[in-house]
Amino acid sequence: MLQLSNFPIKTLKSAPKVSDNRSTSLLLQWGYMRQAMAGAYEFLPIGYRVLRNIEQVVREEMDKAWYHEMLMTILTPRDYWETTNRWEIPEYFKVPWWGETEYRIAPTNEENVTPIMGEFIQSYKDLPCCVYHIQKKFRNEKRAKSGLLRGREFLMKDAYSFHKDIDDFDVFYEEVKNVYMSVFQRLGLWEDTVMADADGGAISDKNSHEFQTFLDCGEDTIVQDSSGYCYNLELARGVPDNKNISENENTMEYMDSVSDIVNMEKMTKYFQAPAWQMLKTVIYKLENRGEYIAVAIRGDLNINEIKLRKFIAEKYNDSFVLASESDLEELWTVRGFISPLKDSKLSIECYADESLKTVKNFFWGANAVAKSTKNINISDLDIKAFWDFNEPIKWFTSINISGEELSFKKASEVGNIFHLGTKYSKPFGLTYLDENNTTIDQIEMWCYGIGVSRLMGVMAEYFMTEKGIAWPEHIAPATHYIIVVGEDNIEAAKKLGQELESQGNTVILDDRMWRKDGFGQKAGDCELWGIPNRIVISPKTLEQGGYELMKRGEEAEIINI
Amino acid sequence: MLQLSNFPIKTLKSAPKVSDNRSTSLLLQWGYMRQAMAGAYEFLPIGYRVLRNIEQVVREEMDKAWYHEMLMTILTPRDYWETTNRWEIPEYFKVPWWGETEYRIAPTNEENVTPIMGEFIQSYKDLPCCVYHIQKKFRNEKRAKSGLLRGREFLMKDAYSFHKDIDDFDVFYEEVKNVYMSVFQRLGLWEDTVMADADGGAISDKNSHEFQTFLDCGEDTIVQDSSGYCYNLELARGVPDNKNISENENTMEYMDSVSDIVNMEKMTKYFQAPAWQMLKTVIYKLENRGEYIAVAIRGDLNINEIKLRKFIAEKYNDSFVLASESDLEELWTVRGFISPLKDSKLSIECYADESLKTVKNFFWGANAVAKSTKNINISDLDIKAFWDFNEPIKWFTSINISGEELSFKKASEVGNIFHLGTKYSKPFGLTYLDENNTTIDQIEMWCYGIGVSRLMGVMAEYFMTEKGIAWPEHIAPATHYIIVVGEDNIEAAKKLGQELESQGNTVILDDRMWRKDGFGQKAGDCELWGIPNRIVISPKTLEQGGYELMKRGEEAEIINI
Repeated sequence: MLQLSNFPIKTLKSAPKVSDNRSTSLLLQWGYMRQAMAGAYEFLPIGYRVLRNIEQVVREEMDKAWYHEMLMTILTPRDYWETTNRWEIPEYFKVPWWGETEYRIAPTNEENVTPIMGEFIQSYKDLPCCVYHIQKKFRNEKRAKSGLLRGREFLMKDAYSFHKDIDDFDVFYEEVKNVYMSVFQRLGLWEDTVMADADGGAISDKNSHEFQTFLDCGEDTIVQDSSGYCYNLELARGVPDNKNISENENTMEYMDSVSDIVNMEKMTKYFQAPAWQMLKTVIYKLENRGEYIAVAIRGDLNINEIKLRKFIAEKYNDSFVLASESDLEELWTVRGFISPLKDSKLSIECYADESLKTVKNFFWGANAVAKSTKNINISDLDIKAFWDFNEPIKWFTSINISGEELSFKKASEVGNIFHLGTKYSKPFGLTYLDENNTTIDQIEMWCYGIGVSRLMGVMAEYFMTEKGIAWPEHIAPATHYIIVVGEDNIEAAKKLGQELESQGNTVILDDRMWRKDGFGQKAGDCELWGIPNRIVISPKTLEQGGYELMKRGEEAEIINI
Repeated sequence: MLQLSNFPIKTLKSAPKVSDNRSTSLLLQWGYMRQAMAGAYEFLPIGYRVLRNIEQVVREEMDKAWYHEMLMTILTPRDYWETTNRWEIPEYFKVPWWGETEYRIAPTNEENVTPIMGEFIQSYKDLPCCVYHIQKKFRNEKRAKSGLLRGREFLMKDAYSFHKDIDDFDVFYEEVKNVYMSVFQRLGLWEDTVMADADGGAISDKNSHEFQTFLDCGEDTIVQDSSGYCYNLELARGVPDNKNISENENTMEYMDSVSDIVNMEKMTKYFQAPAWQMLKTVIYKLENRGEYIAVAIRGDLNINEIKLRKFIAEKYNDSFVLASESDLEELWTVRGFISPLKDSKLSIECYADESLKTVKNFFWGANAVAKSTKNINISDLDIKAFWDFNEPIKWFTSINISGEELSFKKASEVGNIFHLGTKYSKPFGLTYLDENNTTIDQIEMWCYGIGVSRLMGVMAEYFMTEKGIAWPEHIAPATHYIIVVGEDNIEAAKKLGQELESQGNTVILDDRMWRKDGFGQKAGDCELWGIPNRIVISPKTLEQGGYELMKRGEEAEIINI
């Protein structure tokens, strides 16, 4: 029983100005937690109960699936990270140790779990296997943002599974999906949570998914159609909407323009034409080769850097940076007026986004200041190939269902599944003996994350009401909140609290008798903390024979004692 | 249910040579954990269950006493530590952050809890209050020793209480003692655990206690008598045993000796007399004052540095180091021959241990190489004062019960209570309003530690048998261990396991069917892991109508299913 007279917690009248994230600010204001420093939070008794309740749901569902819980270290030796060539990642903390060597406080635990399991995995019969742990993790963020959603210190459940091959995972995967579904269902999020195909950046390829909960303030955007297509915007595809495609192609004309039309707003104004009719071209420098490529796209669309990264990795086995002003000069063009025109001096490989096929008679520059072009059409350009480089916008249609508009929804990531392949098992030398007693050095790994402290932030947002946070009953800091009126009734209230707890409930006893703020403040705290059952014991209720019980959303009633 | 086919754990034939600590080595050998690096352990599923069970006992007892659990951060900002002047402690890790500042990964949490509670404590009615958390902690040990007992990364329960004054604590303290007693009782340690008056080094004064569990391999020694006197040897006092005190005092004589009698063994041999008849004198330099003092003690006793530190702090408000060879030269004496004789040139303040009163006719040097003295008596010396500087030995008697010999027992610390005074509350500016509405800036703090991962090491040692670790039932990795013989019986075993778990038990199912090692190995693992109830399901037991149940220390019986 959390007896408030023993922990003199106070909710604040206004939110401390420390976070750009609404729910984190309110959790700070309402006494759930305090900020130790940007991105690291002290969970106070009220908040810690919520965090632990979420953690427990995750644990129980993992255990039901017979994944085994362990606890890996936070301090990890440098040689683990050198084995996988990940020591020099600046977002991962290094910890000096007596000037002799350094440790790392772990941001993720592939470097622990792989050598551990490597010791145990010997035969094909040991596969698949899966372990998990729930532990604090650390990221050396330059700027900590979004409160609980992206901290320097956070609590995560990380599971790791080991497989003979991708087929072996397919069977396993159905079970994992069920675990995640049960977790988000028990947390009350499932009906607004989807499984999206994900881009995991450096560590994933395919067989990777994100679980995303729809939230207006979410940091991601989920793109869906009715066929079940569900992607993070970073990866999503759509059919670009046709614009003036039915017009006739006019003959391209050069024209003098002005020097300052170097952004889309100024251009559309100058040419008196919509952004989609502008022919935006961006030049990139390939980092290793030192060569340049151009990408042309409709002026109302953005080039998706993740799609571009994959394209360049595949075609050129290279990475890229934006070309600089001096690079452009060298290439006989100039920012704001770049055009891959057939007869220009700009002679680099140019790719075009599919969206170029939806517009006729583009406007753009002519590779010199204040020199422009109108009525550009594809035949005027030197295009090496068309490709999907764009970030879909809401007028795009489904690639699966002809003509169906895509739906875009803001969302927050609550879990993920990444295919790690052999990225860790190879450097740590994991092998197993197959059915024929042959040593196989190909062990496929997957990792499965659920951000427990992040979930608390997402849930706070999701269950936010005007009065507080209406946590699900088994997640709330307590199931019952007892307000006791009159010093004489404290003992009766304690007794009731003990009785309720012995029946499996959890109780917050508001026995802050001496506080100037009266009943209203206490009832208010009960709402801020989202306790689903409010009890009042007062001379008045005792006169009526017992205490008053008010369940969330219901009328108060007197219960006899 | 921990199904071993899903986690292919293997116990090893011999202990990995990574720890100087027997129980840690065996925990590593028996698959409870793995070493990530010296002093940091990965708890595998078997070991993590034990750790969590211990943690849960601690939590439940703390909660019963209505102390409130929270979760403080591991990363802490540098300014917290600068506030208390503890930033530059080399045993505490510093973590660089983008070259701009540094963090600390917390070795202890006074620097978190004091500002947090400072925000909530406003009135005398808010006091006393107590919060706790269970969290990983870190110490920058140069050499990690003793396995789980002294790691670089460890799990601790830390509680902190805040009081108006020491009297306020006295009432509170009885409750704390009860909490600790219940914890150690439930862990099965209580009858061999004592509460000893403690020296907490820098952070304590009085009102500090250690809970010590008797263990032959313990790193501490507890000194007791039948009056209830119970001290860590570091602080213990006794009445020195009389030696030749009834002899007559002879007249002191100078004599030529040899140059190499600079250790006790050589001296006793040279003088043909026991160590206790040697007059050992040690010279210390006071660090700030630059002055010197001498301490004389019986040759068979050691000077207790903690007693000396307190003495010098009190008398001189200073700290000390051992005098160097050149210091001694400057003082007209020489190592091995130092004597505070009245007529010597050595003219510094000399203190004598009480034990000097128990011997007549000492031997020692005469402040020059190969110059010695015999028949030294107190009247020959220039003693400023007698004091208790010694570490008691087993012939000493109680200071409380005349003539009763002291008992000495090796023990391991399992918990402590330290009086922090205002060391933290003052720098963080904590105040409260008293009954007269006066602001008081004197808030007394105590801290209470229980090393959860350390306890696992102590308990492993305490419950060690020839066959494994006989954990108490509620601490063991599981209550039941099911060995299934014959693939056909796996389903029946699973069903039984589920049934047992639904009744509140925990089950390890040994379904490693394909292992070459047979029943013996599996029954052996059950013992190594200390599971109190062993079940066998085999064609034979099924023929007899059910499964075989063998409770720890009892005969096997067939239970019908």
